[in-house]
Amino acid sequence: MSKQFDVVVIGAGPGGYIAAIRAGQLGLSVACVEGEAYDDPKGEPRLGGTCLNVGCIPSKALLASSEEFEKIVHHAEDHGITVSGAKIDVAKMVKRKDDIVGKMTGGIQYLFKKNKVTLVKGFGSLSGKVDGGFEVTVKGKAGEEKVVGKNIIIATGSKARHLPGIPVDNDTICDNEGALKFGAVPKKLGVIGAGVIGLELGSVWRRLGAEVTVLEAMPTFLAAADEGVAKEMQKIFTQQGLKMHMGVNIGEVKATKKSVTVNYTDAEGKEQKLACDKLIVSVGRVPYTAGLNLEAVGLKTNERGQIDVDAHCQTLVSGIYAIGDVIRGPMLAHKAEEEGVMVSEIIAGQAGHCNYDTVPWVIYTSPEVAWVGKTEQQLKAEGRAYKAGQFPFMANGRALGQNDSQGFVKVLADKVTDEVLGVHIINSHASDLIAEAVMAMEFKASSEDIGRICHAHPSLSEVVKEAALACDKRQLNM
Amino acid sequence: MSKQFDVVVIGAGPGGYIAAIRAGQLGLSVACVEGEAYDDPKGEPRLGGTCLNVGCIPSKALLASSEEFEKIVHHAEDHGITVSGAKIDVAKMVKRKDDIVGKMTGGIQYLFKKNKVTLVKGFGSLSGKVDGGFEVTVKGKAGEEKVVGKNIIIATGSKARHLPGIPVDNDTICDNEGALKFGAVPKKLGVIGAGVIGLELGSVWRRLGAEVTVLEAMPTFLAAADEGVAKEMQKIFTQQGLKMHMGVNIGEVKATKKSVTVNYTDAEGKEQKLACDKLIVSVGRVPYTAGLNLEAVGLKTNERGQIDVDAHCQTLVSGIYAIGDVIRGPMLAHKAEEEGVMVSEIIAGQAGHCNYDTVPWVIYTSPEVAWVGKTEQQLKAEGRAYKAGQFPFMANGRALGQNDSQGFVKVLADKVTDEVLGVHIINSHASDLIAEAVMAMEFKASSEDIGRICHAHPSLSEVVKEAALACDKRQLNM
Repeated sequence: MSKQFDVVVIGAGPGGYIAAIRAGQLGLSVACVEGEAYDDPKGEPRLGGTCLNVGCIPSKALLASSEEFEKIVHHAEDHGITVSGAKIDVAKMVKRKDDIVGKMTGGIQYLFKKNKVTLVKGFGSLSGKVDGGFEVTVKGKAGEEKVVGKNIIIATGSKARHLPGIPVDNDTICDNEGALKFGAVPKKLGVIGAGVIGLELGSVWRRLGAEVTVLEAMPTFLAAADEGVAKEMQKIFTQQGLKMHMGVNIGEVKATKKSVTVNYTDAEGKEQKLACDKLIVSVGRVPYTAGLNLEAVGLKTNERGQIDVDAHCQTLVSGIYAIGDVIRGPMLAHKAEEEGVMVSEIIAGQAGHCNYDTVPWVIYTSPEVAWVGKTEQQLKAEGRAYKAGQFPFMANGRALGQNDSQGFVKVLADKVTDEVLGVHIINSHASDLIAEAVMAMEFKASSEDIGRICHAHPSLSEVVKEAALACDKRQLNM
Repeated sequence: MSKQFDVVVIGAGPGGYIAAIRAGQLGLSVACVEGEAYDDPKGEPRLGGTCLNVGCIPSKALLASSEEFEKIVHHAEDHGITVSGAKIDVAKMVKRKDDIVGKMTGGIQYLFKKNKVTLVKGFGSLSGKVDGGFEVTVKGKAGEEKVVGKNIIIATGSKARHLPGIPVDNDTICDNEGALKFGAVPKKLGVIGAGVIGLELGSVWRRLGAEVTVLEAMPTFLAAADEGVAKEMQKIFTQQGLKMHMGVNIGEVKATKKSVTVNYTDAEGKEQKLACDKLIVSVGRVPYTAGLNLEAVGLKTNERGQIDVDAHCQTLVSGIYAIGDVIRGPMLAHKAEEEGVMVSEIIAGQAGHCNYDTVPWVIYTSPEVAWVGKTEQQLKAEGRAYKAGQFPFMANGRALGQNDSQGFVKVLADKVTDEVLGVHIINSHASDLIAEAVMAMEFKASSEDIGRICHAHPSLSEVVKEAALACDKRQLNM
């Protein structure tokens, strides 16, 4: 007979593994099904999904290594430090990244044991409604196995979108997976798509010495970000030497074992050619539901490939939930995690909740971009009366001290009530600085609240305070 | 006739200059008196007081430079980066620091003009009550001048405490001022006092290659910090190679032009000798009121050398206020700034307020230490029932990615109400991470609130969330 669980989670990415752990904490019997996508050399599944294996975690390890390299080569001299012959051993850098990934993914196996989560190894498909819940068929190396969950949480994530006519081999033409394991620094690197992943990985290899050209079909840059932020970042990337061509039309892509040529039409309609050693295709990600067999339980994907869910992540079938990249909303690991916690709490009879209005966004370039809440263009489109306060890191002593004076903080607040509606940050520590803004917005803080709260001196967070004060034109240090 | 102002601020340190700017913003006529303590080579006063001239700002510049050097020498290899012959030009490092100080202090002159603050150059003394307020006599290079303030804000700050028999020449035997401008890296550096300044500056020179020995009279280390934090930091400093001798009794100190010998009795009562090239004396700071002539307005200092004030920083004389290091409370620049804003708002008829319970503390070592609210030992002493949640950076992917995995976050919350009572952080970005905790405590957040608020992944701030969850033993990643 099939094993019975209160909850079967399909997928052990950040949404799925967190949902499973939370369910275990709440005393539910829980299984988590994970296939062989990221098996380690011994054939053991590496848990953590895209995020831990080929996304956030490895890219941040490379980001740090490449930033150290760039600092040594270009900025050590500012401090009076001289070095000679700085070189990077790409294989060693990649091994460091792999070690960190191994440590983090291995940690999840430990967490599963600690929280009594049964790991079921293999590829999971829904096979239908049965007595006691829904049956999931798991095809693993050891054969086929069936598990039944009174509740199902689908957390199958997403995969890189590919383009017709541009075959990704993850050697010469790469998506995020291949771009994390180049064997050497490419001399010329092409990037199709000026989205988050393209910019992050393009920046990594630029810092290590690659000549990077980004081709983007859209005329505007980082459309989801605040326009002022996007404009500033385009300036910064250009200063850094990233070549950016917007509004292009990608034509034929020819690849050999050693190089790629991208034919494209530029914004003026002229035919152009980009020759490079490696090409990264980063044109977004698509929900991953192949082989899941949604039909067996009466579900299907919508026109965007997503599984439709309600505000609490329940699908049209009672007892089946879906979370993370496979549903609506931004494809962000922490959004998936919050949904995982919410759904497990709801299944356990608690009042799980996820406040989508305060999910922060981060772009891990250098400097980083982070924001929470509304952009100025959104507020304008809504016709909402607002005030804006902006303050540059250039006027902050800590930022100057640590050679970190690019960027600014912008606070947007309601013109009448002064409630903070959005906070936008460009700074090398934006991913941490945004936490204060999220906290403030969760408590419906006014810009005056932020401005009146004591901030450590000297710290980068003082710029958040000053930007809040600037909403009422009463910043102190500018 | 003397010039009349609504407010005369004595001292242009972080408390005084911010008070003056805020007064100007509120439409008050305001003068700020600043002496020649930090004149630039042209004889112009450098505003900003200890903090900007010989405190926070220059020390953070050296901190950054010395950290870069240490990373290059000891940690570049972790990333696969090899360099040869790393050297630091101390004069260039110090010049960079001086440039940053010059930029920041020069900025205040601009801010004074913008906010219509009259800068009165010279040493200010109170000369008595007169028609229209209180008279301040200012002795400057151009002679004596008198200004009258309807209100006075005393913001004269503090100076380094010296010890009898240990003459500070700021060449061989230094306080914070001399220790910021060594001409070369001392081979052996002695530090008397394991307080914040001694540890910060001792760490700077250790990273640059000095062999550093710290002698501390107290048996315990960082007594103001949470005991768990202090214990961990003592371990970290020792690992870093800082030699620390606690519970010593300093005896005779003999100095020549080139070296110093410190005779001391160790904790076991044995006679010891420390020979070093330079000695830093960092045994705290004392309020600076010399020459202020408090008696002229009927005021005096208390047994600690401070000016007594009420909760709103008013002295015993109505209309005379004192803020910052010269009064009770921690000697922190941001505390002085908050008081400066409060007092100017009160003078302008507003309801100025300073929440002393949420003033964060920061120690700028590497890693940094920051906290807000109560320590565990304080809660125990109060007999308050509390719960504690702790989470290490070692289990955070971003921290691992950026080689930043020392330290932890500890959240203390009321056992019954779950209100957050204290947050303690050891991390190289603690000074920024603490901002979220201050915000949370200002809104009387519970540990559950912090645990339920979305934190960007991957970011160091996730550790704050996990520590909050750990208060209820429901951390997700440990």
